[in-house]
Amino acid sequence: MEHYFNFTLNASDDRARAGTFTTPHGDLQTPVFAPVGTLASVKAITPAQLEELGASLVLSNTYHLYLRPGDELVAEMGGLHEFMRWPHPMLTDSGGFQVFSLGKANKIDDEGVTFRSHIDGSTHRFTPEKAIAIQENLGADIIMAFDECPEPYNREYNEAALARTHNWAERCLAAKQRNDQALFGIVQGGIFEDLRAKSAEFIASLDLPGNAIGGLSVGETKDEMHQILDVVGPILPKDKPRYLMGVGTPEDLINGVARGVDIFDCVLPTRLGRNKSVFLREGGRLNLKNAPFARDTKPIDENCTCYTCRNFTRAYLRHLIVAKEMLSATLLSIHNIHTLLQLARDMRSAIIAGEFEQFAAPWYVPTKTTTGSL
Amino acid sequence: MEHYFNFTLNASDDRARAGTFTTPHGDLQTPVFAPVGTLASVKAITPAQLEELGASLVLSNTYHLYLRPGDELVAEMGGLHEFMRWPHPMLTDSGGFQVFSLGKANKIDDEGVTFRSHIDGSTHRFTPEKAIAIQENLGADIIMAFDECPEPYNREYNEAALARTHNWAERCLAAKQRNDQALFGIVQGGIFEDLRAKSAEFIASLDLPGNAIGGLSVGETKDEMHQILDVVGPILPKDKPRYLMGVGTPEDLINGVARGVDIFDCVLPTRLGRNKSVFLREGGRLNLKNAPFARDTKPIDENCTCYTCRNFTRAYLRHLIVAKEMLSATLLSIHNIHTLLQLARDMRSAIIAGEFEQFAAPWYVPTKTTTGSL
Repeated sequence: MEHYFNFTLNASDDRARAGTFTTPHGDLQTPVFAPVGTLASVKAITPAQLEELGASLVLSNTYHLYLRPGDELVAEMGGLHEFMRWPHPMLTDSGGFQVFSLGKANKIDDEGVTFRSHIDGSTHRFTPEKAIAIQENLGADIIMAFDECPEPYNREYNEAALARTHNWAERCLAAKQRNDQALFGIVQGGIFEDLRAKSAEFIASLDLPGNAIGGLSVGETKDEMHQILDVVGPILPKDKPRYLMGVGTPEDLINGVARGVDIFDCVLPTRLGRNKSVFLREGGRLNLKNAPFARDTKPIDENCTCYTCRNFTRAYLRHLIVAKEMLSATLLSIHNIHTLLQLARDMRSAIIAGEFEQFAAPWYVPTKTTTGSL
Repeated sequence: MEHYFNFTLNASDDRARAGTFTTPHGDLQTPVFAPVGTLASVKAITPAQLEELGASLVLSNTYHLYLRPGDELVAEMGGLHEFMRWPHPMLTDSGGFQVFSLGKANKIDDEGVTFRSHIDGSTHRFTPEKAIAIQENLGADIIMAFDECPEPYNREYNEAALARTHNWAERCLAAKQRNDQALFGIVQGGIFEDLRAKSAEFIASLDLPGNAIGGLSVGETKDEMHQILDVVGPILPKDKPRYLMGVGTPEDLINGVARGVDIFDCVLPTRLGRNKSVFLREGGRLNLKNAPFARDTKPIDENCTCYTCRNFTRAYLRHLIVAKEMLSATLLSIHNIHTLLQLARDMRSAIIAGEFEQFAAPWYVPTKTTTGSL
């Protein structure tokens, strides 16, 4: 493992962990939530605002940046950190998820995936080697193995896809040349506990600096997600960070940390922010466009310390939404990102204080069912 | 005049002036440029970003706020300063210009104007008394007399409109009840020097705490604008601030100050910012969407000290534009607003140093023609 990428467990409380992951661009204090900057921009938020929010890790998307502006251009501009002016840790996904969800994969074989651009329909091909080459051009601190993310309930497809995902992880590791990037493997296997266990064992055996759990939050139930985390968590090595991809909500973060997850990312805070909706820390959301907020002089959340809640009333935010002012996306996204960042910080403090169980109690959902497939 | 609204001339250099205008929410150091927050939001910019830019005065639009969210709601929410969280000086226009340009005025009489909302076609009526009542609900520091802004080249219409504008200014003054708002009168008269002179004399005679020049930058030539300023400037009292409405560009600010103007506002910096275009201080604009900027590692302007120029390359800004990222509007607007604010600050310093003529020389355009109508 490269010397940059040490993971130190600072404390643990039952399965919940507080750790420190070192990267070339600074330390991540886990649990940590990464806002998503799909196209080298966290939508409607400046890097200065992200720093004020206390963000430490930003995710960007390989598929999108490969298409626009192109990974070679980003490399010429000094890499993603320099291009988008985020001097702190960054992570890029491998493009796997987007190739299947956005890119209309039209030929999947053991070598790679041929797909059509969602922008102009042009044809492109990703292989594990190509996904690594692109991510080396982009230059994030954490890069991801190229994986196949199948429909979660189709067993036959999941078996075939898992074989490819494992083979591709080995090829990614072999293709990787830069030593200042940590390659994380991705556990797949749909909702099938035995496939997930097999995948976790295989990915763990690669001894990468971190491990991710993919293919969740893609249509399965919360309980199924919790089952998978219950199965995968104990198999993945304790001394490596665990990253639950594409998750989530305040509830998902708490239930993930309770099951041993360290790193999260999700577009939800900014997507909801552009769609008039805000997280409530205690659970649920408000749609601020609703008429009852027109004369509501309260902030979104009276206990929230974000810039939006320190300054603006629900009435003003609703006015911005109704008037289609761009500022609404900025102010709502600031609140939503803050909610998840602050929750991660508070979970860390609770874990270090040995009080995670009490902290998590209002949100924690015990896993209810098992498929019995193990 | 209310005690809040003193105008002190700190220095003058030929016709250019450096002054201080006191308001209930702080002092304006003139020359000053006011960014426009049409709907109680400077588009794509937070109040914190505006403060970082050093903005001191923000303009908001009576017509727009009357329609959405309604001036009574703003009053209930504590007024415009509190509602939009701008604790510094604010100015509202009277709605006159928008009623004619956006609102499809369909009945103009000596009493007022009946118009249709550009949002839903509903019918509304503004009178001078109504325009003042709305502005008293909004609560800005500087409010404007209700005026008629006719097509600038039609003499007959300008004569009729001017009579109404003068009568309405008197009615606004009579209707005004709050003593913490400064009412400014508006000089009209199209491109006709004699009408402008007559209007300036009449408006000056009202002895209001400030005077504005309206109906410019609405289709006339730059030279015609300069002529009008040459005529009006000497007539308006020296001991009151002069506000040139709806102007402008860097060149317009310099040519306005050279002709005795103290206050400017314009939507241009933010409108251009949403339309991919940025001011160059030395004159002209760049359309950052153009392909040659794709690999341009320079900032917009190497001498500019704004957040955007301190951090981001033209290549990154172009990428944001091509990818339709909202952040482009924010970053381009920051640069454009900064350019005009900094120019106003630099003009003030030059006037105080007695060096305005040299400072202005690269941009100053002498008035070329006179209509001879005086």
